[in-house]
Formats: sequence, C-alpha cells, structure tokens
Amino acid sequence: MENIKVIFWGLGAMGGGMAKDILLNKKGIEIVGAIGQNPAKIGKDLGEVLGIGRQIGVIVSNKPREVLNHTAADIVLHATQSFTKDVFPEISLIVESGKNVITIAEEMSAPWAETPDLAEHMDNLAKKHQVTILGTGVNPGFVLDTLILTLTGACQAVNKIWAARINDLSPFGPTVMKTQGVGTTVEEFNKGLSDGTIVGHIGFRQSAYLIAKSLGWELDHIAETREPIMTTVYRETPHVKVQPGMVAGCRHIARGYKDGVEIITLEHPQQIHPELEGVKTGDYISIEGTPSIKFSDEQEIPGGIGTMAAAVNMIPRVINARAGLLTMPDLPVITALMGDVRQLIADGKKRCLTI
Amino acid sequence: MENIKVIFWGLGAMGGGMAKDILLNKKGIEIVGAIGQNPAKIGKDLGEVLGIGRQIGVIVSNKPREVLNHTAADIVLHATQSFTKDVFPEISLIVESGKNVITIAEEMSAPWAETPDLAEHMDNLAKKHQVTILGTGVNPGFVLDTLILTLTGACQAVNKIWAARINDLSPFGPTVMKTQGVGTTVEEFNKGLSDGTIVGHIGFRQSAYLIAKSLGWELDHIAETREPIMTTVYRETPHVKVQPGMVAGCRHIARGYKDGVEIITLEHPQQIHPELEGVKTGDYISIEGTPSIKFSDEQEIPGGIGTMAAAVNMIPRVINARAGLLTMPDLPVITALMGDVRQLIADGKKRCLTI
Repeated sequence: MENIKVIFWGLGAMGGGMAKDILLNKKGIEIVGAIGQNPAKIGKDLGEVLGIGRQIGVIVSNKPREVLNHTAADIVLHATQSFTKDVFPEISLIVESGKNVITIAEEMSAPWAETPDLAEHMDNLAKKHQVTILGTGVNPGFVLDTLILTLTGACQAVNKIWAARINDLSPFGPTVMKTQGVGTTVEEFNKGLSDGTIVGHIGFRQSAYLIAKSLGWELDHIAETREPIMTTVYRETPHVKVQPGMVAGCRHIARGYKDGVEIITLEHPQQIHPELEGVKTGDYISIEGTPSIKFSDEQEIPGGIGTMAAAVNMIPRVINARAGLLTMPDLPVITALMGDVRQLIADGKKRCLTI
Repeated sequence: MENIKVIFWGLGAMGGGMAKDILLNKKGIEIVGAIGQNPAKIGKDLGEVLGIGRQIGVIVSNKPREVLNHTAADIVLHATQSFTKDVFPEISLIVESGKNVITIAEEMSAPWAETPDLAEHMDNLAKKHQVTILGTGVNPGFVLDTLILTLTGACQAVNKIWAARINDLSPFGPTVMKTQGVGTTVEEFNKGLSDGTIVGHIGFRQSAYLIAKSLGWELDHIAETREPIMTTVYRETPHVKVQPGMVAGCRHIARGYKDGVEIITLEHPQQIHPELEGVKTGDYISIEGTPSIKFSDEQEIPGGIGTMAAAVNMIPRVINARAGLLTMPDLPVITALMGDVRQLIADGKKRCLTI
C-alpha cells in the first residue's frame, strides 16, 4: 500500500516540529512537499532545514500554488497564522488543489463561531472538491473542548461545565510575553487590550461553540474577560523581568450563557512562574451533572507538543472522513499513532493524491 | 422530523434505567417496543413497569421475534447478558430485523478479543442488513479504553499505559458480592476462581484490544491476575460481613505485552469500603510518552449511571454510522445529549425504521 503523502505549509516551530516528528517517528507517511516563507529556508532540502542529518529530496518552496498544483498528496498540514480570515485564502488554495487539509489556525477549530460566512464557503468548497478540512490543536481542539465533551459521554445530564487550563509561560519567547502583557504596568496592559496588542488566548469562542453545539445547548451569548495577573513577588525569565506590582500574565476567561445562566466557564490564566505565588499548573475539568465528574492532570498537557501531536494524529481520520469542513467532535476518537498509519486508512475511503 | 424510535431488549436495572432516562429526559427519542423476561413485567405498560406515573402505550413482551419483526424502529438498546456467545443469537435476531443495535454486553465492546469468529459473522451480517452494531458501557467502552485513547491524542509517542479504576462495591447487592468473592476465605476465593463462580471484572481483554488496535500496537499476549483483597479491619454492608483476615474484594489486573515488555497495565480492584483501609476510589490514567500525561478524577465515574449514559449517548452516532460491527474508537466523540437528538442525525444518513 502506498505511503500517505503529506505537504507542509508553514515551517515554523509548529510546522517544522510536525514534519520532524513524521520524518523521525511515523510509519507509512512521507513528506512530498514543503512551503515556507523564511528566506533562510527557501531552496534548501527540508531534511537539512529541520536538521535531521539527512536530505529527504523535498526542496522548501515559497510558491504555494506551484507546490500544491504539481504535487500529488493526500493531505496538507497547514501551520501559518491564527485567524480564519487570514488563512482562508490559503485553505481555499489547498482545497482547490483537491487535497485534504489539517490546520492549526486556532479559529479554524470552529470557524462558524466568528466567521459563519467563511465557514459556509469553505464547507461548500470542500464538498465540491470532495476533500475534508479540519482545524485542531491542543487548545482549541483538545483540552477545553474535545476532552471535556468526551467526559460528558458518561453523563445522563450536564448542567454546567467549568474548566481551567493553568499554565506557565516562562519557557516562551518575547512575542508571547508581549501578546500576554507580561512585564507591563496595569495601564500598559489595559492600553494593550484596547489597541489589540495584548490578546490573551485565541480559541475560547471556538471551544465554547464546539461544546454547546455538540451537547445541543443554544447559548445566548459568550462573554470574555481579560484581566492582568498582578504579581506580589519578583518574577523573571530570560526575556522579561517583572517587579512586584507589575503584570505577570493575563487571566483570560470565557463565559457561555444559556437562558441567562452561566453554563460554560473556561479559564485560561497564562503567566510566568505561577509557582512563585503558589499557583499549581494543570488542566482542570469539572462537569456538574448526572453524574458530576472532576478530572485533572498533575501538569498541563504541553501546548506545543500537544498541538503538533493533535494535528499529526488526525491525519488518518481526516483522510477517511466525509468531504466538508469538519470539527474534532465530528470525527472518530483521536489517538496517538504508534503503528503503520496506512493500516488506519479504511478500504474504499477517499484518498486524494490529486495533482 | 420524525422522533428517533427505540426498542428496549432487557428491562433490568440497566435497561430499565436507560428507558426511564429517555422517557423523562431526552428530546426527539421515543420508545416503541420493550422486550423483557420478568413475568411480573410481561403484558404491562412500560411506563407502569418503570414507575414513571403514566402509561406510554408500549406493552412489555417476552416475544423478541414478534416485537422486532412487527415494530418499525431505528435502533435497539440491548441489555441482557455479558458474554458475546450468550448475546450473539439475540444480536443476530435484531440485525436480521434490519435495526441498528447498541448493547452493553461487556464482551461486545470488542468481540474480536475473545470470539473473532463471531465478530466476523456479526460484522458481515450487519453489512448485509445495512445496520450498525456497537457494544459500549462505562467499562469496557469508556474509562479504561475510550478515555485513555482520547488522552493519547495529545501525544507524539506513547511508550506505556497504566490505568486503574478503584471503586467501592458497598452499594451493590448479593450477586456482585458473590462474583467478586466478597466475604469469602482465601480458600473459598481461590476455589471460586477455579470453578468460575468468582470472575472479577469482565472487559479487560476488550479494553486492551481496543487500546492496542487503535494505537497500532501488536500485543504478544494479555495476562490477567485475580487476587483476593484481604482486609485487616472489619467491613460490613447490608449484604455481607467481612471479618479481618477475610476477603473484602477482588484485585483484578490485566497486563498487555509487546515484544516481551509490559506495555499496558489495567488495574481494577473492587472491594467494599476501601476507605476503611485508606484506599481512595477514583479513575487514574497514566500515559508514559511524549508528553507523559497523568489524569485522575476525585471519585470514580459511577458504573451504573455511566453505562446507561454511554449507551444512550451513542444512539445518534450509531444511527449515523456506516454499516458493520463497530467499536467506540471507530465512532465520533461521545458526548452527553442535552438537546433534541434528532438534530444530531446527519441528513441523508441511514435510518432504519424497518418493520
């Protein structure tokens, strides 16, 4: 049986990491194309760019249309930007080339939440070209939606969902420090919120949409709040120094209301060195219902690895899936891929390989 | 849109409980048939039998063939026995009547594990009649397989899986006390194991099969051990008194080996009043991999409610599914059903309603 053929679009930390994982660890998948934009990578062999110590015969190109239209592949792994409106032209190009696509653009985990018109358009386009589009990642896509929904599977009734993903931003670079407002004063933080330079978490509306839609809840509205996490102690990373009284991170909360009642609460406070003020990181899920269920882990599922894993692990599910713009709850249970992935491609299911 | 029509086969604690949940709490589903064997229920209206305070116009029958062949329905919820060989004739009858089926027979969660020939036969029969067969429940079907697999979805690699479901048997009746060996001496316990009157948990091989198959692991073999849980303190329930030095329950463990290495460990120690010796109940899942993930709840997901919920919650998934004998990982993410279930039936998907 032929290998599953993948094209990568986006070779940053996420795209590059996924490509490396496939080259080094996955059986039955091969990379047949690579699209990047970093001049330092264009024209080089992908194996060299990824530093895996060997060439793989795939040259990194900055010409998406050329690669997509002249390379036979089953699926494209897309990792460029976060917002649907920004990736929409790229997704369309992939679909029009007759290939399935998995993107880690946060808003694409449920495009109906923010851009129903674009979602509708992509769904029709995917059906027309008989391919599947999926947006996924660790969050949105897994922890605060798919995992919560799976746990409700053991419930006869669900009255309220509260979940929190408490993580440590210390390992991240200067960009994340800026977008989360780490190291700012309250005034700078609030200014950043208003001018859009401080964004907090991207994906809350998508997670709430997936939860409500899947359970069959009609939400009145979703409200988001972003508050500065003030520190009372000195916190420091290689990229930022935070004095007591300054902002160590952003407490971002989303609340979904049904018939005026807060029925979904998703919290994602992100800061550096939470342990310095006794805050334990982790993923916490509390479902109030019949029965009530409280699950938590000892340490949050790491965002970077989790996102790369979720996207790669969905490859066989998406290749097998019906055509259209789908979401994680539409597809079979996500699992790690430890065997030959070709074994998971159902006989007679659509493969693309369109040139 | 027409209501989803369900026939119940088996009206014991589980079947009756599911029927009650549907009648009292679910939208868009109606019960159109009921098959039982308890003489006290035969010929009575199901509403009366369930004590919901009203009649529903469905008379409990002890003639399966008659009900199945003369009642139009989308699906049959089956809750009679635990072993595939015992329910096989009943499942076949349902399938031959052209109806989908969800059964809580533990071995049916993955019939290939113990009876590959029967599994093959049922798969062919289901395809021939264009219906879907699914076995599910809280465990096997959810906690020690589907939930574990879902968590591996955030992993690039999984090296080993350890999970434990530690529960309290105190609420259960005399039958469970007997099959778990509660209140016996070590000698009686071992005798019970050898003559098959003490069985421990049913479903380990099925859970291990689902985990290995989904991840792509080829197991050499699965080994099961059943040990008496001796108590050093007096333990008592309305149905049994256990003196220090006697057996308070059964520590049942399954181990899956790959290339000679124990790669899956599933523990399910079941006893009365574990708290008397400081044992905390709960579901514990530990995945050793990239990344490693440890999830646990504060109290185990209750077996009875969880099983009833899992079976009912899968109704729309099974109606939408392709024909054949499927397993939980083959189907979309299980979630609670809080809205009109008809909204979840994909347009153009197969419904049966065959008479």
